Amino acid sequence: MGYQETITFILEMIGTVAFAASGALVGSEQKMDIFGVTVLGVITAVGGGMIRDVTLGIIPPGVFQKPVYAAVAVLTSVLVFFLLYFKRELLEGNVTYDKVMLVMDSVGLGIFTVVGVNTGIRQGFADNIFLLVFVGTITGVGGGLLRDMMAEVPPYIFVKHIYACASIVGAIVCVYTYRLFGVVASLIFGSAAVILMRYLAAHYRWNLPKLK
Amino acid sequence: MGYQETITFILEMIGTVAFAASGALVGSEQKMDIFGVTVLGVITAVGGGMIRDVTLGIIPPGVFQKPVYAAVAVLTSVLVFFLLYFKRELLEGNVTYDKVMLVMDSVGLGIFTVVGVNTGIRQGFADNIFLLVFVGTITGVGGGLLRDMMAEVPPYIFVKHIYACASIVGAIVCVYTYRLFGVVASLIFGSAAVILMRYLAAHYRWNLPKLK
Amino acid sequence: MGYQETITFILEMIGTVAFAASGALVGSEQKMDIFGVTVLGVITAVGGGMIRDVTLGIIPPGVFQKPVYAAVAVLTSVLVFFLLYFKRELLEGNVTYDKVMLVMDSVGLGIFTVVGVNTGIRQGFADNIFLLVFVGTITGVGGGLLRDMMAEVPPYIFVKHIYACASIVGAIVCVYTYRLFGVVASLIFGSAAVILMRYLAAHYRWNLPKLK
Repeated sequence: MGYQETITFILEMIGTVAFAASGALVGSEQKMDIFGVTVLGVITAVGGGMIRDVTLGIIPPGVFQKPVYAAVAVLTSVLVFFLLYFKRELLEGNVTYDKVMLVMDSVGLGIFTVVGVNTGIRQGFADNIFLLVFVGTITGVGGGLLRDMMAEVPPYIFVKHIYACASIVGAIVCVYTYRLFGVVASLIFGSAAVILMRYLAAHYRWNLPKLK
Repeated sequence: MGYQETITFILEMIGTVAFAASGALVGSEQKMDIFGVTVLGVITAVGGGMIRDVTLGIIPPGVFQKPVYAAVAVLTSVLVFFLLYFKRELLEGNVTYDKVMLVMDSVGLGIFTVVGVNTGIRQGFADNIFLLVFVGTITGVGGGLLRDMMAEVPPYIFVKHIYACASIVGAIVCVYTYRLFGVVASLIFGSAAVILMRYLAAHYRWNLPKLK
Repeated sequence: MGYQETITFILEMIGTVAFAASGALVGSEQKMDIFGVTVLGVITAVGGGMIRDVTLGIIPPGVFQKPVYAAVAVLTSVLVFFLLYFKRELLEGNVTYDKVMLVMDSVGLGIFTVVGVNTGIRQGFADNIFLLVFVGTITGVGGGLLRDMMAEVPPYIFVKHIYACASIVGAIVCVYTYRLFGVVASLIFGSAAVILMRYLAAHYRWNLPKLK
């Protein structure tokens, strides 16, 4: 495995753990049993990538070519479940729950956005910026959207400040950094842009206009 | 661009504006911020076509080959948002909201149904009536179904009189008009059939039997 | 049609009727009109298979190559609707509703799981156990998941004991029985394993751990 593949793989693992944990958290909060929690964790971690691969014509989707992603998602979900099972006071306060969710979801969003853009580039669509930004964003937001729709909670993408917006900006940063500095820079700067935007938005309570 | 392509394109633009507006209306009614409103508008406008293209093996889906559809959907959604933002009395009464939704949704449903059927014909499935009717209907109802599922409102397709039914009848009209009179007639008569059926159903309050 | 094809076809018909009936039941319970009930029945019956076919690159999905499945699903849904319409006392008690749903859903889950695994084998993925188990499970649970998301009821997959779990175990049984004894045995033992597990789980009220 070359330098770029190693960095991509490490980032994907971090994103998988973060998104699986966010799915497992939502499932636990909804009082699902251990199996429901695991299913939700896995769907959150691999769902966005599956939609992306079907869109790009990668058949069967990449998640089936390397079972390690789903395996890590299962393991993460089970660990989160048992952690909360034996130490449920950990997430008693809603403040803690919201904070952990924010971190997990932001990290997953940032990493999966840039992984999505780079998958589109590798499939030969380097010149179609619109497609690249779309597959980046759908990879980033798809898993969380499926998670929220299945758990029947209000979708994060519509209720949290600067969510899809951060993913789109990160995808654009990723595309242009790729053109100027190559793959590794695009992965790092793109995901950093997403995570930074979400952190600043949450910290300073940035709001986009909405109807009263 | 030939005669048929021009008419198809104009109809698609009208359908895109109508469906994006319906998505933006639902998002505004749900008190989403401007970004959520726009995402919902775009998904409503391009979602049905994406499901159709994946079903027919058009990879990547057509929406990525001509970004103009998504761009028009974004613009429409933003305009709807600001219109409601500055003139919110416009939709104060639920009657107005329901009426505008009915018109936008019916026009989108009619046009996207016949565009879906014709996409199936162009892909070489002119003889598979069942497939044509299906891709017509999924193109017509898919975007609105995604809109309602994501916004967590009761899906139009299940609660409004003569909804999927109008789309299926319109798709059948479209297939047979195509065989007798060609593309342009199929587009016009098929979409007119859908819109007329929905208008009559709403006006005369046609009801299908349901359990008490 | 050979011996194996006949058995597969008969099982698929039974599964289609069972799942269409479960969808029609949920739709009727939600007070949908006859058209909504039928749409929900058809989506439940063919939805899982469509997701599987898109994942495996079967384009257009098998349901369009043999319209008999959708036709049977329509017929079943209409019959269920009229049965309940004229004899609504049939499902007055929630106990009856839950029991009929359990039987229909278990039979559909068992059969569609093994049909999904065998579709994956026929597509040339006999060696990728992970992919086979996934396509089996998604074929089994996909239709019911779409049904519950569209009808806005809490997804069965997350609230019923041993649901996705039974499908996964059945898919694994199916893969290994196939290797040892061939197609027919894999269909019968795999689906029997799913149905038995769900029956035992419901009868003895097996529970997986969940958070309080």
